[in-house]
Amino acid sequence: MDPKKELPNKVDELSQEALTLHAYYRGKIQIAPRCAVRNIDDFSIWYTPGVAVPCRAIEKDKSLVYDYTLKGNTIAVVSNGTRVLGLGNIGPEAGLPVMEGKALLFKYLGGVDAVPICLDTTDPDEFIQTVKCLQPSFGGINLEDIEQPKCFYILDRLRQEMSIPVWHDDQQGTAAVTVAGMINAAKVVGKKFSDLNIVLIGAGAANTCVAKMLITAGAQPENLIMVDSKGTLHKDRADIEAKKEEYKEKWKLCLTTNGCQIKGGAAEALQGADAVVALSKPGPGTIPADWIKNMAADAIVFACANPTPEIWPWEAKQAGAKIVATGRSDFPNQVNNSLIFPGLFRGALDVRAQAITDDMCIAAAKALAGYAEAQGILSEDSILPTMDELDVFAAVAAAVGTKAIEQKVARINRSYDELFAQAKTIIEQVRTLTDLMMHQQLIPQPPGD
Amino acid sequence: MDPKKELPNKVDELSQEALTLHAYYRGKIQIAPRCAVRNIDDFSIWYTPGVAVPCRAIEKDKSLVYDYTLKGNTIAVVSNGTRVLGLGNIGPEAGLPVMEGKALLFKYLGGVDAVPICLDTTDPDEFIQTVKCLQPSFGGINLEDIEQPKCFYILDRLRQEMSIPVWHDDQQGTAAVTVAGMINAAKVVGKKFSDLNIVLIGAGAANTCVAKMLITAGAQPENLIMVDSKGTLHKDRADIEAKKEEYKEKWKLCLTTNGCQIKGGAAEALQGADAVVALSKPGPGTIPADWIKNMAADAIVFACANPTPEIWPWEAKQAGAKIVATGRSDFPNQVNNSLIFPGLFRGALDVRAQAITDDMCIAAAKALAGYAEAQGILSEDSILPTMDELDVFAAVAAAVGTKAIEQKVARINRSYDELFAQAKTIIEQVRTLTDLMMHQQLIPQPPGD
Repeated sequence: MDPKKELPNKVDELSQEALTLHAYYRGKIQIAPRCAVRNIDDFSIWYTPGVAVPCRAIEKDKSLVYDYTLKGNTIAVVSNGTRVLGLGNIGPEAGLPVMEGKALLFKYLGGVDAVPICLDTTDPDEFIQTVKCLQPSFGGINLEDIEQPKCFYILDRLRQEMSIPVWHDDQQGTAAVTVAGMINAAKVVGKKFSDLNIVLIGAGAANTCVAKMLITAGAQPENLIMVDSKGTLHKDRADIEAKKEEYKEKWKLCLTTNGCQIKGGAAEALQGADAVVALSKPGPGTIPADWIKNMAADAIVFACANPTPEIWPWEAKQAGAKIVATGRSDFPNQVNNSLIFPGLFRGALDVRAQAITDDMCIAAAKALAGYAEAQGILSEDSILPTMDELDVFAAVAAAVGTKAIEQKVARINRSYDELFAQAKTIIEQVRTLTDLMMHQQLIPQPPGD
Repeated sequence: MDPKKELPNKVDELSQEALTLHAYYRGKIQIAPRCAVRNIDDFSIWYTPGVAVPCRAIEKDKSLVYDYTLKGNTIAVVSNGTRVLGLGNIGPEAGLPVMEGKALLFKYLGGVDAVPICLDTTDPDEFIQTVKCLQPSFGGINLEDIEQPKCFYILDRLRQEMSIPVWHDDQQGTAAVTVAGMINAAKVVGKKFSDLNIVLIGAGAANTCVAKMLITAGAQPENLIMVDSKGTLHKDRADIEAKKEEYKEKWKLCLTTNGCQIKGGAAEALQGADAVVALSKPGPGTIPADWIKNMAADAIVFACANPTPEIWPWEAKQAGAKIVATGRSDFPNQVNNSLIFPGLFRGALDVRAQAITDDMCIAAAKALAGYAEAQGILSEDSILPTMDELDVFAAVAAAVGTKAIEQKVARINRSYDELFAQAKTIIEQVRTLTDLMMHQQLIPQPPGD
């Protein structure tokens, strides 16, 4: 097969199916009961008059809201649709199919009840105020698809001002799974993670956070070089300095990375580099093969633009790359946020965390990397597990929960084994529920199936 | 049995069970899939890259959000916990068990996916702004348990400024079911609804709306007398006139009701009255038997305070009442909002209504009253159907949807029969799902069962 010809056809087919099935199901999630309803009389327990008793108890001690309500397993997936996938600013209504899809992933992969909430505002302060107002009902907030630099300001303020975990998946989720992939890629090529020279192409919200997390995970700042549309980041980037209030992290990277102060573009930065993480313009052709040829031996290439990687995997390999990862499920080594966020929130919720710290994020990345290693699956074409493996999510959950307890941001205490077993049970039940609903036609078969 | 002694024991037992079961289930609702997930590959339809296709379609035509997402079956149950049931201002966390219970009722009785959202604000403008921000994700808003007079201002503004139905169940739901009950009570005692002299005791948000809806349904304003803590409402109530901006409806009732301008208290108002609707202080003893004795023959008494009616039913009957209704399920003639809101929203959603008009509210009341009559169940102790009857909700839904189409607030057209059949199917599926989940232990049995 010529993959260059096959791909457009596959994409067309998928697009048609996506439209048909979205119209057929009109929604990807629904509400189901969580408590027994033996008969109508049970509503005198779940509603008035019985419900008054837990209400009064929570009035006296707010923390009991975790004991008597859904808060402890429920999060909001919040967006305003200003930067949706590769589609740009399409607005909150058009962003809803994505947020619903995310909620489905949260439930199916992590057993987390997620409510898609698309906000009709582009004002960051109004966004913040609205999300803060939602706090009583939710045990966590997953921010999604918000334009930069507003997303930095929104995330920073909400993390400071809320007492439940707030997470921006485009930043932290991408960073965590990239770190996990890089840890294992280093192992496969036999290089020490902390010695890697890593070039980051693209300096958007995602890669800025990747750089920060690579450093938190042990990479040397001076061995990183970041490249944006104007070239490498270094101390003399006056254009970034001028906006350092809005782009705090990016300016910090100007000051701390690029130890040799290399100036120029990606081509110059990549000379002799061990690894590249590209989260930039969809390709192919964004990264020419020549740039890869000039990297160090056994080069690691993460070409993660969606829907088309910055360079086709076969081109990168021909140019000398040892490991090539992309964001796509139809190539080996998919670097996919979905391997992180369901388990991460599972773990955060199961210890009633007040926050998700950077160390919890790294704990998730290491658990994911460690899972693949422990399974003995590590190879050039297999640096990460796939979403098919249910235990991955339980392992991430248990690691995140354990770290939260260690860092004293957990409200309750559990052992690693308890957390793992609980997460596994919850996730297995969702699979059972889904199969059952499909089997009983409560979820109809797709038309034509 | 002596019901006066039995009741406290029953209440204690129920309270203990309510606390135990709330702690056992930690939440009354959860998220379930609505679409097929045959395997992990299906996420390329429900999430990236396939999801981009419906996103782009909605970006071009916002109304397609009803075709490709959950919006058309999803509402928010929104409160700030400032006036929860009979518990007062207990705050948003303590109000959450009630809003969850409401969401469960919405799903179980109406097949409506409702998300409980407790807002951390007591400022009405912030409340309004937050709810408006939520609009893209939801097909309707059910307001609940908000203190007056803020609830009037919030409801009025949201009804004006949003393009989805906004409903305050404490006002409109209570009013609709009360009107339904009164229509049938009049039939049972053989009086003409439009001739009834009706006294309303309590002039809170609920009864103010009851008065308005009784008039919309055909009662003569001059035949109504409303009584608040300071006595009957009439044209000379300077205390109310002074606050007429905040209490618009109440002041309007001062001007339009009480044709004879009777001054004094409830005792004076009730002299010779055909019916009383009390939504005031929990009793017993709020309405002494003597007041009932002075009413007209075949008096109709709705004593709807919760948890204890203003007068025990047997006392009212002894004093000459022909029909006694309360808010409780353990006495005959329960006047229960739950008979209205699930079907009403089912109908509004099924025609993608832009609003719920007062006439849609009356259509719901008449459908409910008419259902009971058509079933041939009308009697002194049976003026309304019970929640056990699934078809009630489908009948309300079809009537509401039909009225919305007639009034041109519907976005799509359906026949009455189509609406009825669709509603019935949706609600039946929820029953099947619930039974299945309980049978398969996906909802565990209550402890000790």
